[in-house]
Amino acid sequence: MAGSTFGTLFQITTWGESHGPGVGVVVDGCPAGLSLCEEDIQKFLDRRKPGQSRYATPRKEDDAVKILSGVFEGKTTGTPVSLAVYNENQLSKDYSDIASCYRPGHADYTFDQKYGFRDYQGGGRSSGRETIGRVAAGAIAVKILQQLGITLTTYTKSIGPVVCRSFDAAVIGENPLYMPDADAAENAQAYLDACMAEQNSSGGVIECIISGMPSGIGDPVFEKLDANLAKAILSIGAVKGFEIGDGFDVAKATGKSNNDAFCPLPDGGVGKASNHAGGILGGMSDGSDIILRAAVKPTPSIAASQQTVNSLGEEISIRIRGRHDPVIVPRAVVVVESMAAITIVDALFANMSARMDAVSDFYRRKPPQCDPSLIGFR
Amino acid sequence: MAGSTFGTLFQITTWGESHGPGVGVVVDGCPAGLSLCEEDIQKFLDRRKPGQSRYATPRKEDDAVKILSGVFEGKTTGTPVSLAVYNENQLSKDYSDIASCYRPGHADYTFDQKYGFRDYQGGGRSSGRETIGRVAAGAIAVKILQQLGITLTTYTKSIGPVVCRSFDAAVIGENPLYMPDADAAENAQAYLDACMAEQNSSGGVIECIISGMPSGIGDPVFEKLDANLAKAILSIGAVKGFEIGDGFDVAKATGKSNNDAFCPLPDGGVGKASNHAGGILGGMSDGSDIILRAAVKPTPSIAASQQTVNSLGEEISIRIRGRHDPVIVPRAVVVVESMAAITIVDALFANMSARMDAVSDFYRRKPPQCDPSLIGFR
Amino acid sequence: MAGSTFGTLFQITTWGESHGPGVGVVVDGCPAGLSLCEEDIQKFLDRRKPGQSRYATPRKEDDAVKILSGVFEGKTTGTPVSLAVYNENQLSKDYSDIASCYRPGHADYTFDQKYGFRDYQGGGRSSGRETIGRVAAGAIAVKILQQLGITLTTYTKSIGPVVCRSFDAAVIGENPLYMPDADAAENAQAYLDACMAEQNSSGGVIECIISGMPSGIGDPVFEKLDANLAKAILSIGAVKGFEIGDGFDVAKATGKSNNDAFCPLPDGGVGKASNHAGGILGGMSDGSDIILRAAVKPTPSIAASQQTVNSLGEEISIRIRGRHDPVIVPRAVVVVESMAAITIVDALFANMSARMDAVSDFYRRKPPQCDPSLIGFR
Amino acid sequence: MAGSTFGTLFQITTWGESHGPGVGVVVDGCPAGLSLCEEDIQKFLDRRKPGQSRYATPRKEDDAVKILSGVFEGKTTGTPVSLAVYNENQLSKDYSDIASCYRPGHADYTFDQKYGFRDYQGGGRSSGRETIGRVAAGAIAVKILQQLGITLTTYTKSIGPVVCRSFDAAVIGENPLYMPDADAAENAQAYLDACMAEQNSSGGVIECIISGMPSGIGDPVFEKLDANLAKAILSIGAVKGFEIGDGFDVAKATGKSNNDAFCPLPDGGVGKASNHAGGILGGMSDGSDIILRAAVKPTPSIAASQQTVNSLGEEISIRIRGRHDPVIVPRAVVVVESMAAITIVDALFANMSARMDAVSDFYRRKPPQCDPSLIGFR
Repeated sequence: MAGSTFGTLFQITTWGESHGPGVGVVVDGCPAGLSLCEEDIQKFLDRRKPGQSRYATPRKEDDAVKILSGVFEGKTTGTPVSLAVYNENQLSKDYSDIASCYRPGHADYTFDQKYGFRDYQGGGRSSGRETIGRVAAGAIAVKILQQLGITLTTYTKSIGPVVCRSFDAAVIGENPLYMPDADAAENAQAYLDACMAEQNSSGGVIECIISGMPSGIGDPVFEKLDANLAKAILSIGAVKGFEIGDGFDVAKATGKSNNDAFCPLPDGGVGKASNHAGGILGGMSDGSDIILRAAVKPTPSIAASQQTVNSLGEEISIRIRGRHDPVIVPRAVVVVESMAAITIVDALFANMSARMDAVSDFYRRKPPQCDPSLIGFR
Repeated sequence: MAGSTFGTLFQITTWGESHGPGVGVVVDGCPAGLSLCEEDIQKFLDRRKPGQSRYATPRKEDDAVKILSGVFEGKTTGTPVSLAVYNENQLSKDYSDIASCYRPGHADYTFDQKYGFRDYQGGGRSSGRETIGRVAAGAIAVKILQQLGITLTTYTKSIGPVVCRSFDAAVIGENPLYMPDADAAENAQAYLDACMAEQNSSGGVIECIISGMPSGIGDPVFEKLDANLAKAILSIGAVKGFEIGDGFDVAKATGKSNNDAFCPLPDGGVGKASNHAGGILGGMSDGSDIILRAAVKPTPSIAASQQTVNSLGEEISIRIRGRHDPVIVPRAVVVVESMAAITIVDALFANMSARMDAVSDFYRRKPPQCDPSLIGFR
Repeated sequence: MAGSTFGTLFQITTWGESHGPGVGVVVDGCPAGLSLCEEDIQKFLDRRKPGQSRYATPRKEDDAVKILSGVFEGKTTGTPVSLAVYNENQLSKDYSDIASCYRPGHADYTFDQKYGFRDYQGGGRSSGRETIGRVAAGAIAVKILQQLGITLTTYTKSIGPVVCRSFDAAVIGENPLYMPDADAAENAQAYLDACMAEQNSSGGVIECIISGMPSGIGDPVFEKLDANLAKAILSIGAVKGFEIGDGFDVAKATGKSNNDAFCPLPDGGVGKASNHAGGILGGMSDGSDIILRAAVKPTPSIAASQQTVNSLGEEISIRIRGRHDPVIVPRAVVVVESMAAITIVDALFANMSARMDAVSDFYRRKPPQCDPSLIGFR
Repeated sequence: MAGSTFGTLFQITTWGESHGPGVGVVVDGCPAGLSLCEEDIQKFLDRRKPGQSRYATPRKEDDAVKILSGVFEGKTTGTPVSLAVYNENQLSKDYSDIASCYRPGHADYTFDQKYGFRDYQGGGRSSGRETIGRVAAGAIAVKILQQLGITLTTYTKSIGPVVCRSFDAAVIGENPLYMPDADAAENAQAYLDACMAEQNSSGGVIECIISGMPSGIGDPVFEKLDANLAKAILSIGAVKGFEIGDGFDVAKATGKSNNDAFCPLPDGGVGKASNHAGGILGGMSDGSDIILRAAVKPTPSIAASQQTVNSLGEEISIRIRGRHDPVIVPRAVVVVESMAAITIVDALFANMSARMDAVSDFYRRKPPQCDPSLIGFR
């Protein structure tokens, strides 16, 4: 099945394996006239680049993006924007140990079961490098949203047992874990150091806030905005849970505590006195901030010895060689932001035909230019 | 946007409002030759029927399903199966109070913002009756899965603070809350009685286990099986969170504790010594049970007084009249099961073309019957 | 596979067999606020109703449409519009002769080959009654287009050897064949009378002109407007060819004769001095009339004796009993118009996000109503 | 809108402009285990390469394809196959004349109307180079079909007034026009020489025969196999008409002459005594050859002077400089074959879930490998 395409009107198709010639994405449905250059995308890719702290793999990956189509004289043309990052520095590493066994927590076994064999070099298609295409597309989506006054703030909410207790947006960029709470960031680093000393790894939670949303975006049944956000976020490798607003806490809540009272806004609009719903009611945005969270599992590649099975079905013990991220969360922050942005753009475009008056108004302002002299028999 | 269709190869399209002529679903892509009668579907619908305990609204809804197409001589024909439940006993109730205000926790406001106005009778399209189409389609999906040896077990995992601590499948059907732990069921009923006494409502968690899955179902990137399950579950009204396997607990876990070791099975196959992953690795089923959970918010319709805004933007206080479910969870159990089953069927069908050898084998067994005498110039 | 849905943003799903309980359609993605009543749809259905002339089957089918959802107080709500026509007067006819043989020119054999068996009563899903859902949806699409100043004129261009040589729109409705040329209509009736006397049937051509199109609708690659129109028209049973503009005549034309010169319009716009292209250049509308044609095969059900094979593979000869249309063309005129209209509406909606400036402008006029007091740590 | 993707289960996404860095395609849904190398694709691309005769532009385009993903150790892995052809020898030509005017018969005007501006270099996205991605993907589709015993034969049926009257498959590759009739090929060359002397161009017809089809492929309503073929073929630039089987000739035919009698085959199967239907009945293949035709318009780029309008709306006359193909037909033969093959592969995959017995059989042969010891409370 074709499973590498996401979105309907703003649609991305990613391709590429860890150790092939490269990875990339085709972004189709990007409106014409958006200013776009490689630097716009590069700065997003740099947020997921490894080697930036001792909590990320020290592998050197420059990940320089090339725009191959869809941009003319600095602006998108409305045709597909093809973006590629060519793989470099692929060492002729010996993968024979991985080739013949199933690493716990990885997709080696399921790839073999589905396809009969797999590209075992560096994880192949299920490598973290698969997210490069998502992030490159996300850079475009975020740029579109900026033009509409919509901004995303994404950060590490927790690492292992360490949860952020305060929020200062300025702090996010000041620590290698992208936490908005400086104390938590320090504690989390200590926790990660301990994990690494034990050849272990840690999970965590990523939170994303989308501000400036118009209300009424999303659909009331299967294309609920939160349903599409859930799919977008769960499609990221290593994510095992998704919450919108209060998420799993609603299970313990009551109607009295969980309902958000509507209240009049000074400008005559309607606001809410609280935001347990996380900005979405009945699948449609209510104009308040959309708040979502992703639960990220610990890096499955650990140096400690693990029991598993080889392709002959024999029990063996393995140690995953190489230097791996002790925690995926910080590098996945920009992936979550990208997938959320792509989803929001698609929903905004789909919403444009929701009302007959808006459609009429749209086309009234773009008068048909037909030649009345052509009317007659053909 | 068209947002009432779910699935690709096994595709459902629902329609209907709470107080219109009826609700229904068109199930397209159901394979030919499946035995199907109205009773197969009715017994599923009866699981979500109100009025079966004091924890569900006492409204009488017979919800008798009619098969309108796609079945001939007791078997599906491969063409769309159209199912309808006509609304009966729609009292000419006065909805003028709801028409002019925004109920907290409901989609009244977002409907107005999206569409300019709304069918305010009984929630219109965002009524719980919208799920009738899902459950009717789910009955067919579950029947298909049964033929493939795949079964779903779905139940209430928690209500408010009361969490099941033991599991006995036989107990699920013996209490009105569909809990697999008799003690928890008793405690939860006491908790709900207290909620009702305070004109309040409760949330809860639903868990679904899918057993007998072949391995390798789902896709490795955007069409991950868990991503599609997440969308399916979040598309159910009132669901605010989704987990697969250990879910949010992975955030606090380490690689050592979270990785599931592979182990040889007596039959020569490969199993796992634990199932933190919940049966899915890299987006594809690994052959162990798929385990998912949905967080359901408290019923927003409560009798207690609430602050809100009317359509003129004025602050008002309201009480939601009528008898509403104090907890949605038990009636939503079958909805979760239905959406999960629909998603699994679609993934199974999509998987059939994953390998060239399987495709070749499939078509070898169905030889082309062309007339060689026709070859020549046309 | 799910194959009963057409369109992306304006999406229709049809269901139903000739002799089951009914036929219908779910129209999803219809904008909110469109005035709609059953009479709007009924008058379209009446254009395909049998029994209106001696060139159509005298079967009595009232085909009274019911709106089951999506309309509230006379206006569409933005949710799915479900339309049903219940089958009546289904005689308990004996179909055992058809059940056991493959009628030439019909889909009996291919249904059996695909699905293993078929609903053989009156053609089942491949009956002409399948088009009722298309026409009911087409009535809505045409109504949307009218609001945007777009009109469709559809008529019989030829029947057998009789081709219209003049065009008078007023004449179309004045003859039972829907021809715009009164002389041709008379000759065609004489030709059909001769066919009927010989227990034979005739084919023909339908032409559709879409006027008032804005320019730039459609996409330049796979979603070309003419490509989608081609699919829409070829999806109608009995259609074997499609042309846009000069169609197959372009094969004999030269660049000099076929190119349409652009010319300035008095209002400052751009027109064309001719319209060989049929209103579409590079897949996008150019603002002049869209002109398309469909080739319709002769009714395969003829009373004359035919050789065929029964389900045991034995050679037999059959006569198709009952009174069948000697020509499908006149009743298919409204089906062609409906499918064209549905395709155009979908393309118009998809086009709304083609330009960044238009998207920005759209959302500027719908200001977000978020509560600034909610910003903070959540 | 995203309009550069075609297909559902076997899905291609093309990108690229004539004078940008390159053109390419992502082929998603290709089954794992298909042998594939660049040479397989290159030989298809070479069939559309210019400069091979005096009837094609003498531009030198090597069009060397690179496989960027989805192939490992000579076999497809089931993940997206990304193919790129980098543009070379792009002269820094002066396009200022084209930039400021609308060439008749081209998409310059409609691009401007849709997107507000356009990449005017060499036609941009609507250049013939856009078909490179289609042909590269087509090479893969044809290879899949070969494994299933399905072959395509595609050729020029007519050029201008010269129509092939005989068929010899061996002759197709022996003349630069890909005609199966040596006499016609000679006459067509004389006709083209005359066109070129007059600074004119010619249209023509391409025919494609698909042999070895299993019966029952395609769907009975909107996803009719011929409807999807029609869309596929009309999505090719310059195609203005599509026929299946007898095509427009059916309009003049009668039921007696047009119906294909079924007849028993020696092997016990069912054949047809004629093939007016072109291998498809009711949208599904009947096992006989599928026969389709495409009408291709004359190259709009002609050296003769033409009237048109510049971007200021002023009337001007232009001559299209450069050497252009005097006829597109021969180079489009492989494009038609590619789009037909892609459509057939997609239909074959979609058909695999049409019958419950086939689905059951498929999954019985792939036993689930779940661990029974895991059953219990989670």
